[in-house]
Amino acid sequence: MSPVVSVNSDLRQELKDRAARFRDRMTSQGTLVVNLVSSPGAGKTSLLQQSAKELSSNHRLAVLVGDLATNRDAERLAQTMPAEQLTTGGACHLEIPLVEAGFVRLSEQTPDILFIENVGNLVCPASHDLGEHLRVVLLSTTEGEDKPGKYPKMYRTSDALILTKMDLLPYVPFDVEFAIADAHAVQPQLKIFQTSATKGEGISQWCEYLRQLCQQLKSGNLPSHVR
Amino acid sequence: MSPVVSVNSDLRQELKDRAARFRDRMTSQGTLVVNLVSSPGAGKTSLLQQSAKELSSNHRLAVLVGDLATNRDAERLAQTMPAEQLTTGGACHLEIPLVEAGFVRLSEQTPDILFIENVGNLVCPASHDLGEHLRVVLLSTTEGEDKPGKYPKMYRTSDALILTKMDLLPYVPFDVEFAIADAHAVQPQLKIFQTSATKGEGISQWCEYLRQLCQQLKSGNLPSHVR
Repeated sequence: MSPVVSVNSDLRQELKDRAARFRDRMTSQGTLVVNLVSSPGAGKTSLLQQSAKELSSNHRLAVLVGDLATNRDAERLAQTMPAEQLTTGGACHLEIPLVEAGFVRLSEQTPDILFIENVGNLVCPASHDLGEHLRVVLLSTTEGEDKPGKYPKMYRTSDALILTKMDLLPYVPFDVEFAIADAHAVQPQLKIFQTSATKGEGISQWCEYLRQLCQQLKSGNLPSHVR
Repeated sequence: MSPVVSVNSDLRQELKDRAARFRDRMTSQGTLVVNLVSSPGAGKTSLLQQSAKELSSNHRLAVLVGDLATNRDAERLAQTMPAEQLTTGGACHLEIPLVEAGFVRLSEQTPDILFIENVGNLVCPASHDLGEHLRVVLLSTTEGEDKPGKYPKMYRTSDALILTKMDLLPYVPFDVEFAIADAHAVQPQLKIFQTSATKGEGISQWCEYLRQLCQQLKSGNLPSHVR
């Protein structure tokens, strides 16, 4: 008879369970968890800097910042909200144990919104639940409008799409309608925002959306399309 | 006594060996293999379209195009050279078996240059040898100058860096000198090109570099910094 060999087949399930428990805990304490994913350089850090200006007067914010190496993004964000760098040491995405470990180091333990800025990667982070309530994918106008169909899992698993760098539209070949149609073909429920962090365009609408979700979370009425 | 269980521990070494054999075979037949890597939307396809215009009069070209889904890039490139799409079905990088399988489908079996356009991902493709002679990383000016330090393995394993979308410099905050210094801090031997596919800037220098490498390959004198 062949021996039965256990090869950690439950590791993925264990991570999913830990993520679900983290989300439940954040729900209980009234913290909305927002996981930002995108290609490198799509503007996650700049979006957070602008969002903090608008939200921080009425909301306690905090951010966990994922990168393979360096503290560059956490240093940028620490000027606007409590920030902790999560350095993966080369790994291509964040996982829930790193998020849990980073969270306990934050000086703000009961934020209204906990942002997680994922590693810049349009593929691998799609497969990892970080205990977020909301997954938000960013697409910059400089990347081209064909990305949703080419990277479908990231769009399929996201709740909102933020088009960034809209101020560069006059200078780049980017078909906004195609991008939106391509994204909705993959995920019809995607909420879409058009923004420019340098010009401030669209930031208010995005922040208003977060404000509403915060209220809905605290009153136990988070919409069903948000996990 | 515990049973000894083989868990494919040699799989990575087997892939490395296959990549080395593919490279040797391409060297023997005088084909320079160029692996292009970058974030999604940095301009790999556009660079290849412009390069083909300049190189195709004197060089036989072919391209293998990696994507998670869709044939969009192969369709764009098929207008300029024999092109085969490699669809990973969701995987975040190409591996040598997919390259081998794609190569035999190409209508051009003895190109002077075989381009491999990798999946848009600044992390995972760094760890996979595709049998290339030259690994080229692209960084678009719209991504920000801080990427080399944040994604060091990709830069450390590359032979050349192409700055793309230089025509957008007037509209984006991008410090060219910082980007070059940051890249050279990671990999001092990186050959650097500054290009704009839409304006044609820098394409000649890049193509001249490829022409020289083609000659050196055929005469058995490929420089030592190129693998």
